[in-house]
Amino acid sequence: MKKFLEPRSVALIGVPRASGPDSYNNAETMLRYGYEGRLFPINPNAGEIYGLKSYKSVLDLPEPADLAVISTGRDRVLPALKDCIRAGIDRVVVITQGFSDADEKGKAMQDEIVRTAREGGVRVLGPNTMGILNNFRNFTTAFMDTERPRVYPPVSVIAQTGFIQMAAPNMGYRHWGKAIDIGNGADVDVVDALEYLEDDPETKIIFIYMEGISRGPLFLETVAKITRRKPVLVFKSGRTRAGARAALSHTGSLVGEDAVFEAAFRRTGVIRVNDGSELTDAVHALLLLGEMAGPRIAVLTITGAGGIMVVDACEPLGLTLAELPEGLAKEMKQGIPGWIPIGNPLDIWPIGMIGGDYPGAFGRALTGFLKSPGVDGVMAILPATLSPLHQSMNLVEVCERSRRDAGNGKPVAMWVYIDVEPFLDRYEAIPGMACFPTIEQSVRALSFSRRWHEAKNRRIPAPRSFPVDRTALDPLLAKGRERGVLLGEDALAVLKAFGIPAVPGAIAAGRSELEALAPRFRYPVVLKLAGDAFLHKTEWNGVITGIGSPAELAAAYERLLENVRRRSPDTPVEAVQIQEQTPGLEILLGIKRDPQFGPVVACGLGGIHAEVFRDVSRALAPVDTEEAEEMLRSLKSAPLIEGTRGRPGIDRKAVIDVLERLSFLALDIPDIAELDINPLMASPEGCLAVDARIVWHGSR
Amino acid sequence: MKKFLEPRSVALIGVPRASGPDSYNNAETMLRYGYEGRLFPINPNAGEIYGLKSYKSVLDLPEPADLAVISTGRDRVLPALKDCIRAGIDRVVVITQGFSDADEKGKAMQDEIVRTAREGGVRVLGPNTMGILNNFRNFTTAFMDTERPRVYPPVSVIAQTGFIQMAAPNMGYRHWGKAIDIGNGADVDVVDALEYLEDDPETKIIFIYMEGISRGPLFLETVAKITRRKPVLVFKSGRTRAGARAALSHTGSLVGEDAVFEAAFRRTGVIRVNDGSELTDAVHALLLLGEMAGPRIAVLTITGAGGIMVVDACEPLGLTLAELPEGLAKEMKQGIPGWIPIGNPLDIWPIGMIGGDYPGAFGRALTGFLKSPGVDGVMAILPATLSPLHQSMNLVEVCERSRRDAGNGKPVAMWVYIDVEPFLDRYEAIPGMACFPTIEQSVRALSFSRRWHEAKNRRIPAPRSFPVDRTALDPLLAKGRERGVLLGEDALAVLKAFGIPAVPGAIAAGRSELEALAPRFRYPVVLKLAGDAFLHKTEWNGVITGIGSPAELAAAYERLLENVRRRSPDTPVEAVQIQEQTPGLEILLGIKRDPQFGPVVACGLGGIHAEVFRDVSRALAPVDTEEAEEMLRSLKSAPLIEGTRGRPGIDRKAVIDVLERLSFLALDIPDIAELDINPLMASPEGCLAVDARIVWHGSR
Repeated sequence: MKKFLEPRSVALIGVPRASGPDSYNNAETMLRYGYEGRLFPINPNAGEIYGLKSYKSVLDLPEPADLAVISTGRDRVLPALKDCIRAGIDRVVVITQGFSDADEKGKAMQDEIVRTAREGGVRVLGPNTMGILNNFRNFTTAFMDTERPRVYPPVSVIAQTGFIQMAAPNMGYRHWGKAIDIGNGADVDVVDALEYLEDDPETKIIFIYMEGISRGPLFLETVAKITRRKPVLVFKSGRTRAGARAALSHTGSLVGEDAVFEAAFRRTGVIRVNDGSELTDAVHALLLLGEMAGPRIAVLTITGAGGIMVVDACEPLGLTLAELPEGLAKEMKQGIPGWIPIGNPLDIWPIGMIGGDYPGAFGRALTGFLKSPGVDGVMAILPATLSPLHQSMNLVEVCERSRRDAGNGKPVAMWVYIDVEPFLDRYEAIPGMACFPTIEQSVRALSFSRRWHEAKNRRIPAPRSFPVDRTALDPLLAKGRERGVLLGEDALAVLKAFGIPAVPGAIAAGRSELEALAPRFRYPVVLKLAGDAFLHKTEWNGVITGIGSPAELAAAYERLLENVRRRSPDTPVEAVQIQEQTPGLEILLGIKRDPQFGPVVACGLGGIHAEVFRDVSRALAPVDTEEAEEMLRSLKSAPLIEGTRGRPGIDRKAVIDVLERLSFLALDIPDIAELDINPLMASPEGCLAVDARIVWHGSR
Repeated sequence: MKKFLEPRSVALIGVPRASGPDSYNNAETMLRYGYEGRLFPINPNAGEIYGLKSYKSVLDLPEPADLAVISTGRDRVLPALKDCIRAGIDRVVVITQGFSDADEKGKAMQDEIVRTAREGGVRVLGPNTMGILNNFRNFTTAFMDTERPRVYPPVSVIAQTGFIQMAAPNMGYRHWGKAIDIGNGADVDVVDALEYLEDDPETKIIFIYMEGISRGPLFLETVAKITRRKPVLVFKSGRTRAGARAALSHTGSLVGEDAVFEAAFRRTGVIRVNDGSELTDAVHALLLLGEMAGPRIAVLTITGAGGIMVVDACEPLGLTLAELPEGLAKEMKQGIPGWIPIGNPLDIWPIGMIGGDYPGAFGRALTGFLKSPGVDGVMAILPATLSPLHQSMNLVEVCERSRRDAGNGKPVAMWVYIDVEPFLDRYEAIPGMACFPTIEQSVRALSFSRRWHEAKNRRIPAPRSFPVDRTALDPLLAKGRERGVLLGEDALAVLKAFGIPAVPGAIAAGRSELEALAPRFRYPVVLKLAGDAFLHKTEWNGVITGIGSPAELAAAYERLLENVRRRSPDTPVEAVQIQEQTPGLEILLGIKRDPQFGPVVACGLGGIHAEVFRDVSRALAPVDTEEAEEMLRSLKSAPLIEGTRGRPGIDRKAVIDVLERLSFLALDIPDIAELDINPLMASPEGCLAVDARIVWHGSR
């Protein structure tokens, strides 16, 4: 990637001869941006382009360029690429659009480009890209002319679109340091870009805009490594159903289920942002505020109403109000009337006005909060004013002193108002302090600092291994692979091989087998039609519950036969399933193999919870004990698991154990596409799988 | 109020003698702000203050001032007010804090101030206020010096805090036209301020910041009238539990349940905003974009990724993508290759670049969208650039022409990027166009325009009247008022008097009455202990269900007696309740009288839905058919009402009828504090109240 970002020479293929207004001449834009390497315009008519000697072909160049940038029509991209290969150029940016982003023909052309590049040992960025921006080298491949920023932060962006490069001041953080637009991502992709940025000393924060992802597992591995050292922010669009449809037609990349991306981001410590304002604030917070070690906020305000707004903003973000440090409370009360309220939020206005020393009171409070071990971060609301009458209300020096006195790096998010602009830079020059446009955004900024602390220090998952009964398992797997699907007792037997308990049950092929099995069960039992003909049992009246004795069981069997006969006289009942009836809370568990991220484990409560309210939690396998615990805890229906309305809770440990075994199973049998346990009956005494279904790849 | 906002002369009581830095001298700040009326500083030491002749007392003034502003210590406020009354001043602003916002003593002092003012025929604004800001008259009572804006919009603010006046450029809309800080709202309150702003020609939009409200019914009536003509935006803080606690201690105003405020705002067409950025964007949208008549958005973008972001932003706001007008699709396809996608979002970049006329393509598309009857509003994403190479990308004239050609006022929200600042004003000078800081905020702006259209044109509720069986009702009410509460059959009988169907049931005082009643019921029935001793029936094992015959009923009665004897041999069983057993979906209905807004009708599903998930919808009484319908529809558990998982839906009409009757009852019996129907059993055949509880005021 380094050669893409820091080329010493660049060949521009398809550069127009014209320059100036409306020519989109990238030789012109690159030189205007200050590029200091050699530029070789390539144009069939040769001559001079924007004052540079131009060449008919890359084959005529005096030396192989470090990088070629192709912006011809789409039909001429492949020949140009072949010329590059022949000319010994091994890095190529394809600006041209109209490939997998357009139609089938474009997709075929793109495949051919990739094949040719791989054979020729060339890396291709694009097609459908604006290419590279590297402010540290005055380098851009964009055909749009923009002013080069004098100051830019160590923030690098990877995107599937060029506009994020251009829009830095409006969407993102004033300016980016570097940007890599992978476009259609035909060859160079997010993972390549991440690998370069991981150790890039000019990159302290990475931002990724994605609509989908390729090489999912490698992405997870790479990003998980990086997030221990550098924050990785992701804006994944297409998060609504309508948005996902729109994304699919944009770059033609495979758009996965958003909930799976969410699980992948959580697992790997990625901080997700969902709109432009979150993005800007998150970058700003992480650059200036750094980490916040806990959720306890102290609020220092000059307005009571502002303090309430802070409190309202904290709750949904999981931030809490710190206890007012006792020593500080005592200190603040000195010399002021008793009716002035002292608390957190701390309204410094009456204290400062009536006590006669607003800056002093503010400084003592800020220092006290920062020094308190019960405070993780401070939110401050204060005016900034140009009025000659109120210069003592500007507290830059006070804040500097408090910061020094406190001697730690706890973040202070600030909302300043009135004459803001002239003071922003001065406040933000103080370490660990940053200003945001609204009160709510300032609070949210602190929550980003906290999320970064948590991402960086997230647990290393410790998935358990479980013994597997291979003797029982192997023939079942052979059967499953052959038929594509395993149901009922077969599927439950697979679970049992992994130590997942199932309701006692058996298959009986006919009346006499049923009679022989009858005494083995604890009644009441359930009798169900078995076999492929009866997948939708309710349509057949194929389930009889509450059977109280072996005699009732025999009668139930006759009733089932009669039900089938009545609906379809010619359908034979080859087998029935008998199961002990189990009370409890219905839980649904599942595995689904995501095409990008591999097996995903899901759980939710049965009945309406999963189906109607879509209250399901998901995690990438492997899942360890703590994460399985968290999966249950994060369900909206968690109160039912804990017990409520006089109903006792269930044996959580047993369900967590099943989740872990299921995750182990998902990795142990990699060719399973889907597995559902529906339901797992959970009671205070444990849990038992009642029905299951396992589907192999290609069988649906 | 006019005298508060446009006084020709002002007496300043408690103005410090010193002026200049840190003196907070409001004579100085008023004159610096450009106040053109007469100013009378009042100070016991008299002499000159900031170049003005000062007076020892308002009693010494040459004429009664239109307005007095008191900013003495809290103990001297009352005497100052009395002086004002004697001096014939009938409008007073009390800046001083330390009243109901502080302690019990302060609260008593405030009450005394109000009493004195009322007796003296004086209106008081405050205490604990910054008072008045009126940029149309260069008038401010604030003791903080700020620069007077040269341009200010016709937006007026009513607040319970002063900082919103000061923070206009940062929280709100650049500047306010007028601001009224009611402070503790001891006398002048939100309603007074609204009444003034209602017909104020200098006010086109009203913004209210509130933590609580007084005179709820009058507020509703006033604001409902205004929102037919002017948008009213409300930021109500204390919306979280922690925030509500903080608000209570701030101005000491009664903070109601947030869900009830939500219902009140919905009913009266108030547009609620929840943070500073929503506030700014909403004002901006309503000022510049006006109304949007429907939810259908056309997206015109220069970046595919930006288009996806728009789509993602639309869904949660209830906005939809308009169908691409057929004629426009045909027009856009002319002269460009077939692979270029044409749709909504419409990515104009490839069309413009390959077709060779970006401004023309953009203009044709914008005109086409605006003219289409299937499009309610447009979201446009385009660059704005200072580069001499790309001046044709700036589309101010193109937009002006499209707007003219389209000949309508449909809103166009814009997100422009790159060199934004120099172009904002030019785009915003075009009628119906406005720019916002992020893509998501631009989309949200359109949703504010839609909310305003809906608020303005909201239905006039048409609550029905119902016949009441007064003969049955009156003795029950007498009993209820005496005991404070009615339960079981008594409460159900009240409902029946309003035509709300209840499960057939009766009270039996002893064995022989029960025997006599037994043949009247359809079995199975339920038998319950009745009487005040058995409020918590489950503790007594006081409910027996599934009683299949009169004989079983007799046995069940004995069992109940035995259950009571076992627990408490001395407690007599004076009566039992017998009820037919009814299957169905459990629905909870209720009335609760809100101290501010009067009776609130609530409904939700029984079981975990209301208790665990708090899935309850609320509306102020009276509720008409359509609103009752909406209450059911807006429940998260609505799918259960519609029917799901093979379960049939319930008789919605019957439940809606009960809601309307309940709302009628709530207004008909104004001294009921609470009423619960728990549960109402609803089935496809109708619904029946099974149990109810009615509580009168002062009985809890």
